[in-house]
Amino acid sequence: MRIVRLDMTKLEIKQEEVPEQYRFLGGRALTSRIVADEVDPTCNPIGPYNKLVFAPGLLSGTGAPSSGRLSVGSKSPLTGGIKEANAGGISAQRLANAGVKALIIEGAPAPGKWYVLRIDQDGESLTEENELAGKGTYEVVQALRAKHGEKTAIISIGPAGEMKLTNAGVSTCDVEGNSSRYAGRGGLGAVMGAKGIKAIVIDSPSYINAPVADLERFRAAAKKFTSILTGHPVSGEGLPAFGTNVLMNVISEAGALPTRNFSRGRFEYANAVGGETLAEVAVQRGGLATHACHPGCVMRCSNSYPMPDGTVCSPIEYESAWSLGPHCEIKDLDIIAKLNYICNDVGLDTIEAGGTLGVAMEAGIIPWGDGEKAVELLEEVGKGSPMGRIIGNGSVFTGQAFGVSKVAAVKGQHMPAYDPRGAKGIGVTYATSTMGADHTAGYSITANVLKVGGFVDPLKKEGQVELSRNLQIATALVDSTGLCLFVAFALLDNPDGLPTVVEMINAQYGLALDVAGALDIGKDTLRAERDFNAKAGFTKAHDRLPEFFKYETLPPHGEVFDVPDEELDTVFNF
Amino acid sequence: MRIVRLDMTKLEIKQEEVPEQYRFLGGRALTSRIVADEVDPTCNPIGPYNKLVFAPGLLSGTGAPSSGRLSVGSKSPLTGGIKEANAGGISAQRLANAGVKALIIEGAPAPGKWYVLRIDQDGESLTEENELAGKGTYEVVQALRAKHGEKTAIISIGPAGEMKLTNAGVSTCDVEGNSSRYAGRGGLGAVMGAKGIKAIVIDSPSYINAPVADLERFRAAAKKFTSILTGHPVSGEGLPAFGTNVLMNVISEAGALPTRNFSRGRFEYANAVGGETLAEVAVQRGGLATHACHPGCVMRCSNSYPMPDGTVCSPIEYESAWSLGPHCEIKDLDIIAKLNYICNDVGLDTIEAGGTLGVAMEAGIIPWGDGEKAVELLEEVGKGSPMGRIIGNGSVFTGQAFGVSKVAAVKGQHMPAYDPRGAKGIGVTYATSTMGADHTAGYSITANVLKVGGFVDPLKKEGQVELSRNLQIATALVDSTGLCLFVAFALLDNPDGLPTVVEMINAQYGLALDVAGALDIGKDTLRAERDFNAKAGFTKAHDRLPEFFKYETLPPHGEVFDVPDEELDTVFNF
Repeated sequence: MRIVRLDMTKLEIKQEEVPEQYRFLGGRALTSRIVADEVDPTCNPIGPYNKLVFAPGLLSGTGAPSSGRLSVGSKSPLTGGIKEANAGGISAQRLANAGVKALIIEGAPAPGKWYVLRIDQDGESLTEENELAGKGTYEVVQALRAKHGEKTAIISIGPAGEMKLTNAGVSTCDVEGNSSRYAGRGGLGAVMGAKGIKAIVIDSPSYINAPVADLERFRAAAKKFTSILTGHPVSGEGLPAFGTNVLMNVISEAGALPTRNFSRGRFEYANAVGGETLAEVAVQRGGLATHACHPGCVMRCSNSYPMPDGTVCSPIEYESAWSLGPHCEIKDLDIIAKLNYICNDVGLDTIEAGGTLGVAMEAGIIPWGDGEKAVELLEEVGKGSPMGRIIGNGSVFTGQAFGVSKVAAVKGQHMPAYDPRGAKGIGVTYATSTMGADHTAGYSITANVLKVGGFVDPLKKEGQVELSRNLQIATALVDSTGLCLFVAFALLDNPDGLPTVVEMINAQYGLALDVAGALDIGKDTLRAERDFNAKAGFTKAHDRLPEFFKYETLPPHGEVFDVPDEELDTVFNF
Repeated sequence: MRIVRLDMTKLEIKQEEVPEQYRFLGGRALTSRIVADEVDPTCNPIGPYNKLVFAPGLLSGTGAPSSGRLSVGSKSPLTGGIKEANAGGISAQRLANAGVKALIIEGAPAPGKWYVLRIDQDGESLTEENELAGKGTYEVVQALRAKHGEKTAIISIGPAGEMKLTNAGVSTCDVEGNSSRYAGRGGLGAVMGAKGIKAIVIDSPSYINAPVADLERFRAAAKKFTSILTGHPVSGEGLPAFGTNVLMNVISEAGALPTRNFSRGRFEYANAVGGETLAEVAVQRGGLATHACHPGCVMRCSNSYPMPDGTVCSPIEYESAWSLGPHCEIKDLDIIAKLNYICNDVGLDTIEAGGTLGVAMEAGIIPWGDGEKAVELLEEVGKGSPMGRIIGNGSVFTGQAFGVSKVAAVKGQHMPAYDPRGAKGIGVTYATSTMGADHTAGYSITANVLKVGGFVDPLKKEGQVELSRNLQIATALVDSTGLCLFVAFALLDNPDGLPTVVEMINAQYGLALDVAGALDIGKDTLRAERDFNAKAGFTKAHDRLPEFFKYETLPPHGEVFDVPDEELDTVFNF
């Protein structure tokens, strides 16, 4: 395994040995560590002194089930703090199988020049390909796969990233070449744009032959882990049947579905945009109710939704369906699919994009629930019009542009699909996560709503901090393995879950970690991220929800977010 | 004297006695104290929990020369920290003579309703006057003076403030009713807009009859202070002859005039836009080379510049001439006047507006030096178009919209007319001031360039921190007296200066302060502001200049800003 360092000022590529201290890190643990070690926390995120780091997880590229996550790390242009966003698709597997432990991109080229980096087993090459500038990710993937092979993994940015808009994401593709798997959050596409990198092509002979120290032992553990996943009702039944959007009705029923910009917790048309309806319509139209974003996934939570004109949006995830749906009072799945497709193509994070459309509706720019107008507005982003640049910079920016003070964001990043007054554990995660408002950083919905890993009453303030703390630590570990976070349901309920993950790591790296030692990877990662953020200027004042959550009650439960500030300040006491 | 509290949620006005702890505070000391005491530092600046505070200085409304400054305080929508911006004009005198120690506006009304507050000796009244909505400040002042009397002081916001744009300023007027005296910096106009206040009308029987404990003693001190001011070459000769814009040639000659967005320190057309040319053209066209912004000013640094179509822009100050001129490579005074006039009317801070136009040029939106295009772009703000909302939100916002990383701002606020690489003392002030990049917070140009109060080599890093520290303390005191900051030249050079100011305060309030005790007002004010900012989430990471000042040299001197971070962190060690 090697570290690839690309200097975009000098247009130089270096191969480096993996330093000892990075050998047993991967994914988020590795990207966050490299960013913390090498990036000045006060640097301008879109200036030449920021760096963009890609890393497969510890288990990526092996036969471990559902281990295809690619971590992307940097100082975030959206939050101003450290950022790790991870994505499915085949890039992590390709990168690991090409022998790359991490890719570090630094410096900045002359403005207006666009480059493509190619990585394979034999090395790397950089070419200027300005003809790709301005193109959407679907076209970019098609063009690059035609040139480099239909099995290559393509990481790319759309026009949003080229414009360095702070809601620009980094796209990766699935087996079919759908450029719809996003390391979306935090504007990492803008950093890639600032580096002049339009796309990265990764070729490798295999998806699953990354080096493993003890293959037999590894295979036994992987097999056991597969059965643990398939044996859990969420990862073995719910997700494989309806994907993540199975949550739409569940969360609405729980009264925690943010509707009309967080003004109520239930959406009367939840079922019309939920996973059950989605699966039915998708199959009717010749699409797929379930689909794997990378080879070896046993949960297959993705889907493939043909729109009326035949174009396919794959997948529509719950978060996207919510942000582009109930948050905007949009109740038409075809409109949601269209908005989702635009995000994928232009290169935007769907959560932030939908969050932003809701803020634009709050501002009166377009009417609530008006899908056609929402499509028109979102299409402005790709055009680079002044309105498009506002929308493409996310919800806080759009709120500021139009004088809207009700914006559900923390550290500049919009909240996902759970209202923190209807599920208070997730509010603790939103407030305190090193990443800004991010459900994946500590998915308290497990115990608050799904009764996975125990039950903590979602409407009480008691127990939420502990719940979020434990989940944030475990998540930082999972995000470092390359395993999809959805393995967490089984990890929380099955006492054999985490030991089996640790067994896979031990077998692959010849280590003798125990569970506590593995969780230390999570703790160390959080500490490095917190430290970076403190140096970047974050204090406990940044670990707070927007004030309206304290003062405005949420129907139907009539709750405010009342976990005390002093308790929020104890989340990282470990 | 009374405190007036206006609750815009309940539409209620209360008169309150001045609490003991506020009795001997005024201006910035009072607004910052009230904001620190009453405003949650983490509140949303344009939400209902922020407050807007107006206070005349300790000496305002008396016969003290040049004591007409009005302080406006709040949590800043632009910086996210505490803000005090002060302005000349007649509002402070009218307010003090109407018996008002401070006006506190809190809460927020139903959106879309606009109110006018009237204050006189007998009390206050609030009326809904929606017909003023959307109108520029010139028209508002004219309409309200026609109704309330031609001698009333009018504080108002333009459309920028109504739209809650973060570069919206608070306008006050001079004797003639020119709405061109601005508490411009930090977006306080947006706070006024968020409170639904379009204008405040202040009537009083006099400019100079505020209560004074020992009038004879006061008059003697005021007389002495007048002669101290008129005896100093800056306040007695330079400013009264050419106004502040006399600095244009001086600073360009010193190599510290930021030109073309801080890419060089000299402007070859400095003289074409400088004070000497301005005075000549103004007089030729029947305008005024000098003018007092309020009765009793002995420095008369304002001017009155008729534009070719006969409309008068009064004044054109150095900072405005720079930001709208050399910063944008604009060399035409008539264009500068036009841009300045638009800012006054729409309700924008000129420094931030010009700073923003330079960023727009850096982004390639309009060409460098193109005055006509600059006028068109600035006019978008009043229209509320998406482009106007970008420009109206200032330089950092515009940089983010268009992916420009070279933005000369600190804590979100654009730098004024001195490059910190050509005059390093001002760089220390920009970096560390509680206000964001603000020359008035500690005007080190005195010793760096003008050789007032000693000399500290502008290109050396030594001595700058001490210089800035002492000036920041003294300034916080001066800003609390209502005296114009331009008295500082005489205070720095004349050993009788500061004792005479203290003597006026003692005579007015029956106190026995010495100079050290008076400077404690400055120190206490800075401490309260720093404390607020810390609670709002500011750390030493915010006390830094943008990174390009460390890495890009500035012609002609070829310097970078190299005052070490560790030294910057000692500015508030007092």
